[in-house]
Amino acid sequence: MYDIIIIGAGPGGYVMAERAGHLGKKVLLIEKAHLGGVCLNHGCIPTKTLLNSAKHYLHAKEASSFGVNVGEVTFDLGKAMSWKDDVIKTLRAGIAYMMKKNKVEVVQGEATFLGTGKVQVGDTVYEGEAVVLATGSVPLIPPIPGADQEHVYTNREALTATKMPESLVVIGGGVIGIEFASFFSSFGVKVDVIEMMDEIIPFMDKGMAKEFRKALKKTVKFHLGCRVELIDGHDVQYTDEKGEKRSINADVVLMAVGRKLNLTGMGFEEAGLDFDNSGIKVDEQMRTNLPNVYAIGDVTGKSLLAHSASRMGEVALNTICGKSDRVRYNTIPWAIYSIPECAGCGLTEEQAKEQGHNVKTASLPMTVSGRFLAENGKRAPGLVKVIADADSDILLGVHMMGAGCSEMIFGAAIMLETELRIKECKEIVFPHPTVGEVMRDTMFAVK
Amino acid sequence: MYDIIIIGAGPGGYVMAERAGHLGKKVLLIEKAHLGGVCLNHGCIPTKTLLNSAKHYLHAKEASSFGVNVGEVTFDLGKAMSWKDDVIKTLRAGIAYMMKKNKVEVVQGEATFLGTGKVQVGDTVYEGEAVVLATGSVPLIPPIPGADQEHVYTNREALTATKMPESLVVIGGGVIGIEFASFFSSFGVKVDVIEMMDEIIPFMDKGMAKEFRKALKKTVKFHLGCRVELIDGHDVQYTDEKGEKRSINADVVLMAVGRKLNLTGMGFEEAGLDFDNSGIKVDEQMRTNLPNVYAIGDVTGKSLLAHSASRMGEVALNTICGKSDRVRYNTIPWAIYSIPECAGCGLTEEQAKEQGHNVKTASLPMTVSGRFLAENGKRAPGLVKVIADADSDILLGVHMMGAGCSEMIFGAAIMLETELRIKECKEIVFPHPTVGEVMRDTMFAVK
Repeated sequence: MYDIIIIGAGPGGYVMAERAGHLGKKVLLIEKAHLGGVCLNHGCIPTKTLLNSAKHYLHAKEASSFGVNVGEVTFDLGKAMSWKDDVIKTLRAGIAYMMKKNKVEVVQGEATFLGTGKVQVGDTVYEGEAVVLATGSVPLIPPIPGADQEHVYTNREALTATKMPESLVVIGGGVIGIEFASFFSSFGVKVDVIEMMDEIIPFMDKGMAKEFRKALKKTVKFHLGCRVELIDGHDVQYTDEKGEKRSINADVVLMAVGRKLNLTGMGFEEAGLDFDNSGIKVDEQMRTNLPNVYAIGDVTGKSLLAHSASRMGEVALNTICGKSDRVRYNTIPWAIYSIPECAGCGLTEEQAKEQGHNVKTASLPMTVSGRFLAENGKRAPGLVKVIADADSDILLGVHMMGAGCSEMIFGAAIMLETELRIKECKEIVFPHPTVGEVMRDTMFAVK
Repeated sequence: MYDIIIIGAGPGGYVMAERAGHLGKKVLLIEKAHLGGVCLNHGCIPTKTLLNSAKHYLHAKEASSFGVNVGEVTFDLGKAMSWKDDVIKTLRAGIAYMMKKNKVEVVQGEATFLGTGKVQVGDTVYEGEAVVLATGSVPLIPPIPGADQEHVYTNREALTATKMPESLVVIGGGVIGIEFASFFSSFGVKVDVIEMMDEIIPFMDKGMAKEFRKALKKTVKFHLGCRVELIDGHDVQYTDEKGEKRSINADVVLMAVGRKLNLTGMGFEEAGLDFDNSGIKVDEQMRTNLPNVYAIGDVTGKSLLAHSASRMGEVALNTICGKSDRVRYNTIPWAIYSIPECAGCGLTEEQAKEQGHNVKTASLPMTVSGRFLAENGKRAPGLVKVIADADSDILLGVHMMGAGCSEMIFGAAIMLETELRIKECKEIVFPHPTVGEVMRDTMFAVK
């Protein structure tokens, strides 16, 4: 009898298992593939590792501005992939070590959920006080004829490519699509992104998304408001925003239209779990409709981010332990690791207005920062936008674009979590000279 | 008649002038040299610009691990210096633009303070409601025989060097000494640092300082507890910690033992201003003993950091405007831009104990972060240390070492400013995968 059985060892499951084990709980963690889930093995980590290679490549190309002369700069995809594989292996081993250290039992296999307290793997039925469903998601393949060809990739195939494509069409201008577009275009691959909506990254502040697309446009061609109809061999055929038929020929096509939640084939329906295509229904404490059964991460459909999954796991654990807690989805930051990076936390200007706020905002280019200028030059893309409630002066959102902003946005999460007013944000001292200071300067520009 | 006359256009003076002008105040800003003061012209900005070149150089050298092949990597000091000069020029022009935009009058010349309301430049006496003394500091040259030779540099000469020295002795293991040691040693220059105290960076948490020195030791040789007696030509003669006489021969010697406050020759004494060698005496609102006379920045001796000076200027301005405000020195972050970087905010473990706290702490290597590992490898130096009060659970200090930490420490400043408990810090969500997550993980490790 376990205290907690967790199905799925992604960033929801393994973080919860580690924290629960640390508290002395008897934990069983079931994983059908590798520890770390999609995030570590086919998502966040490998993409960021490869994007780091792209950043090194571009840095080497521009290093002479800073007095660093290099010879010819070339890219060895095989070596970059090896580095990525090493990183994955090291991190997998790290999770395995943490599981052992915190006395979490790990079982490899496909789990079937039998209802409250019971999970089957192979012939064995495991019993636990609490069951946590953290089964994640897979790439969504839309029913486009020709999508089943070998040169039509998802993130999984793109992350194990053995040669650089000559040209690439990315279907979908969301985070995954944009990160791959940025990666491949860094090395001169001709990249076209086809997006159905009228702007990339649908959840972004519209003004920022436009600036972001402009920055990416130097190396990537965008086709907005377009619908892909057919992939005929290497021809991607689509209808453009005016209803006209068009096509782009590409060596490789990357399918990045979204994620499908893992809800089927694991006994959820048979057990009477309340769920639909948008996810397993959970309350603010991650409880499902079944007693002592919790769901966390992508499979809840609430937020498809690795760190959201981890936080949901922490809330589920606190709930199991009788402590009050809840996920505040409005203070969860996000980041895109493209070149340039983008990040945000809190409301966009559109959301703030929709929610009835009397909005005040300010935007400043990152070039007002001495450090940004020193490290990136005057023409580098970079922008910070701050959104606040004009009546209460309370900060509502921070949105950033520019080198390194993925590592700064957690600061905005703290300001939002502690519900600071702009007046109070201005009293926080940032070290000089840092790029982060632009966030502070933007606070001073809000009116 | 001005509302505010500010003497000194460093980060104390020009930031205050800008904010005051923005509020509609009639401001006169007097500067004897260049807008931006030491920080922009001979300090923060040029050192960070050159250290960015060093980072590019080292990145290019290690890029092949990530699949980026470059030919021979060489360093062109002249080109790096040109880039640095361009950055300074752009930023000076930026300040001039901001002064104009906010209707701040700028006068070039040496100011004499004549007492409350009066400042003279050349033959002109300017009158103002409030006078702000922001006169800064210069390098301290200790009375060591031979310190007046041409190859004995301060930061100013090091920042305009036209050729790389073959070898360098740095006298002083504080921030300035360490940043230059890191810069020159990055390119293979033989560097020795001689420090009188038994550890480098005296204000740092002792445990962190030791780890930092260990990380730097790969390229820099340290001589702690040693006192330099004489610079005989190129021989730097010193007494070691056992009292033995030793010497190191060096092409260039860098004097980096500290800063001397600019207190003399400007009429301070004649005007009856209360000051001594440790600085102008000010209260929490930056008021001096003379009515409507304020002092901010280095010259107060309270904190010799650019961003402290800016914050002091903001507090002085709020005081002038009748708003309550004060600088909380315990939440001002600091950063060292060496390779690796270091940063901190709040109390060190030693300070926390001295102040009577029942201390709880935790430290984690940065390699627990997937992104840090992906971008730096398993052997890269990186560490986060968190200090909290065991009784109240309130966070007291955060100390970091590792690539990029200078851009993360402002987050710790927010947590300290808002007086978060460790329990509350754990509820803040950091994006995954980021290096910053190590801060969060360390919060979970505190016990």
